[in-house]
Amino acid sequence: MTAATDNAARVHVPLGERAYDILIGPGLIARAGREIAARIKGRKAAIVTDENVAAHYLRPLSESLAASGIEASAVILPPGEKTKSFEPLMEACDKVLAARIERNDAVVALGGGVIGDLAGFVAGIVRRGVRFVQIPTSLLAQVDSSVGGKTGINSRHGKNLIGVFNQPDLVLADSDVLATLSPREFRAGYAEVVKYGLIDKPEFFEWLEGSWNDVFSGGEARIRAIATSCQAKADVVVADERENGPRALLNLGHTFGHALEAATEYDSKRLVHGEAVAIGMVLAHEFSARMNLASPDIARRVEAHLRAVGLPVSMADIPGRLPPPDRLMDAIAQDKKVKDGKLTFILTRGLGQSFIADDVPASEVVAFLKGKHPG
Amino acid sequence: MTAATDNAARVHVPLGERAYDILIGPGLIARAGREIAARIKGRKAAIVTDENVAAHYLRPLSESLAASGIEASAVILPPGEKTKSFEPLMEACDKVLAARIERNDAVVALGGGVIGDLAGFVAGIVRRGVRFVQIPTSLLAQVDSSVGGKTGINSRHGKNLIGVFNQPDLVLADSDVLATLSPREFRAGYAEVVKYGLIDKPEFFEWLEGSWNDVFSGGEARIRAIATSCQAKADVVVADERENGPRALLNLGHTFGHALEAATEYDSKRLVHGEAVAIGMVLAHEFSARMNLASPDIARRVEAHLRAVGLPVSMADIPGRLPPPDRLMDAIAQDKKVKDGKLTFILTRGLGQSFIADDVPASEVVAFLKGKHPG
Ligand SMILES: NC(=O)c1ccc[n+]([C@@H]2O[C@H](COP(=O)([O-])OP(=O)(O)OC[C@H]3O[C@@H](n4cnc5c(N)ncnc54)[C@H](O)[C@@H]3O)[C@@H](O)[C@H]2O)c1
Ligand SMILES: NC(=O)c1ccc[n+]([C@@H]2O[C@H](COP(=O)([O-])OP(=O)(O)OC[C@H]3O[C@@H](n4cnc5c(N)ncnc54)[C@H](O)[C@@H]3O)[C@@H](O)[C@H]2O)c1
Ligand SMILES: [Zn+2]
Ligand SMILES: [Zn+2]
Repeated sequence: MTAATDNAARVHVPLGERAYDILIGPGLIARAGREIAARIKGRKAAIVTDENVAAHYLRPLSESLAASGIEASAVILPPGEKTKSFEPLMEACDKVLAARIERNDAVVALGGGVIGDLAGFVAGIVRRGVRFVQIPTSLLAQVDSSVGGKTGINSRHGKNLIGVFNQPDLVLADSDVLATLSPREFRAGYAEVVKYGLIDKPEFFEWLEGSWNDVFSGGEARIRAIATSCQAKADVVVADERENGPRALLNLGHTFGHALEAATEYDSKRLVHGEAVAIGMVLAHEFSARMNLASPDIARRVEAHLRAVGLPVSMADIPGRLPPPDRLMDAIAQDKKVKDGKLTFILTRGLGQSFIADDVPASEVVAFLKGKHPG
Repeated sequence: MTAATDNAARVHVPLGERAYDILIGPGLIARAGREIAARIKGRKAAIVTDENVAAHYLRPLSESLAASGIEASAVILPPGEKTKSFEPLMEACDKVLAARIERNDAVVALGGGVIGDLAGFVAGIVRRGVRFVQIPTSLLAQVDSSVGGKTGINSRHGKNLIGVFNQPDLVLADSDVLATLSPREFRAGYAEVVKYGLIDKPEFFEWLEGSWNDVFSGGEARIRAIATSCQAKADVVVADERENGPRALLNLGHTFGHALEAATEYDSKRLVHGEAVAIGMVLAHEFSARMNLASPDIARRVEAHLRAVGLPVSMADIPGRLPPPDRLMDAIAQDKKVKDGKLTFILTRGLGQSFIADDVPASEVVAFLKGKHPG
């Protein structure tokens, strides 16, 4: 990552002819027109957004585009995970075509991960691919979903099962817009920031332990946290664009996390994704300790930091009853494939020393869950 | 193209890591299990087909797959262009996921161009891409739509506006299945065969003039015609996979043709695509003569051959009334972009000497259409 002249950090994602820049900093929405016009030939853009985000940022973005000679139209969808399904996809494709977006024009995603995933899919299939710009507005989208090119919608058979790999042409992560994000959503995104430290950046985790307060209050520290996260994700994506190997490390905390999301029926009142990941990361560290891979002190340290910022850290922190351990195990087995009673998990050998373990006995996982279950 | 041991011709499409084979010959459906098992790791396949084609070939294909240890399920859709739309796409994705098709398993398109275009899109987006096999059953699909990787559906804003580039892993063009295709559909596909001669293979056109009867009755000549066409399309695709330049030559006859399809409201009782292309190719040659690019004899020779096989060759051959020349011109201008009163057309300098002309005056086209219009 490099510091740009104007307070923005820049992370370059070197994917050959699909290479792109991620800019991170304040005031990027106001500058969006210039940045997009400099990179994209077309002079039309279709902004895909949700009602919450539109209320704050649609107008400033449209004005910025207009000031750079880009004619913008908007597709405003309802907020929430349900928007990642076929009907909104169809509606968005239709409106983008009605706006006469051509191959050199852009679809611009203005919103959280839901909007980014949907709009990226739309950009990938309208006219078999038009240009695509991500303007992520949630912390989770800025540090995770807007980078890496995975786009798509959900199916009744599972999450993210229909989509395309579609790298954006540009990502603009405006650190100012996080001011209107709810504290709970900010914390949830922060869990993914911590994840990058725990995968392979112990010094970043240590820095977060000391500076999280600054990250939460904005300014330089926040930009640094986002930029470090984007760089970490970009590194993994460049090493493994199509997710055949090391990209799996990004799933640290996610196997347990997904099981908990399923167990709470994706009810965001009880649990949002980043919260599930926070609990999942603690469980992964505790399980690593149980398997004698890492010291239990590491797990306690991770737990202490996540608890300090206000994230849930154990199953007991989830409001309402959870299904019994066997049912949680079923959810895990659905997420992962079980081969000869063995599972693939992301475990750790120490702080920031995660690795892909592909021979974890399912029986050990069930026994562990029984011990952890609030009952 | 090379002759294979077993009566089948083989055309290799050298697209790097997306390279694939096209096999052309008799009995390929019976051999499909073996050919697919040899190239694809997974042992599951979802066959996407339409009711007409399923009635003849779904069982033999399923049996062939089963004999090679591939478990097959089927998605049977209504025949016709309407199937290239969002609802059937959604239904097919859902059924493919219900069949638990994973990234190394295959979606198999068994049908004409409608099924191939839809199934290829499904294969490109389910789990962000699973393996894909084309078993084209119409002549048009065998010589054109199954090769080249364009897949997709229609939108109310136009044809093929939503989709992905998705090269198949294998194309099996079984020459036997054309026996059940209606003579009219066979002729329509034959117009595209003639097209390859007229683009840049005068000797192929001459051979067709002498051997079309053998091509229509089956056997060696038919296989040769299909294989030569596939090779011609593959050559263009390899030169220009994403359609930025020379691939436009494949649109010979299509600018006039699309306008006529629009003018007849895509009513297949009046005109099917290949018929529109036949008329369009004659018009393109006549227009080239009018522009003093080629001798009028060439146009007459093209017309004579197409008429001999039973294809329509002029607007007067279309049953029912046509909109006036100005309205046809509007349809052309919608299909192509008009820049400063100039259009891009595929024209010719002689037999098999087509080229991309990007400065055709719209006024000349209107004047020409006025002369040709049946009134
Ligand atoms: N593509 C990937 O690689 C990837 C990675 C991780 C997660 N995801 C996906 O991301 C989605 C979750 O993303 P999310 O957490 O951003 O959810 P989200 O998009 O639903 O946003 C959360 C909420 O915050 C609101 N919001 C967003 N930005 C705001 C702002 N600046 N001010 C006020 N409100 C704002 C939204 O309207 C929404 O109500 C999931 O669908 C998940 O599958 C994708
Ligand atoms: N992807 C591309 O590059 C490309 C190129 C050209 C055309 N296309 C598309 O192809 C489509 C037209 O393809 P088509 O002409 O094959 O139409 P189609 O798929 O509708 O097939 C024509 C009819 O023949 C029937 N049929 C097919 N094979 C048969 C067989 N062996 N026996 C009996 N009946 C059979 C079908 O059921 C259908 O009723 C259009 O949608 C067009 O846009 C795509
Ligand atoms: Zn996550
Ligand atoms: Zn055609």
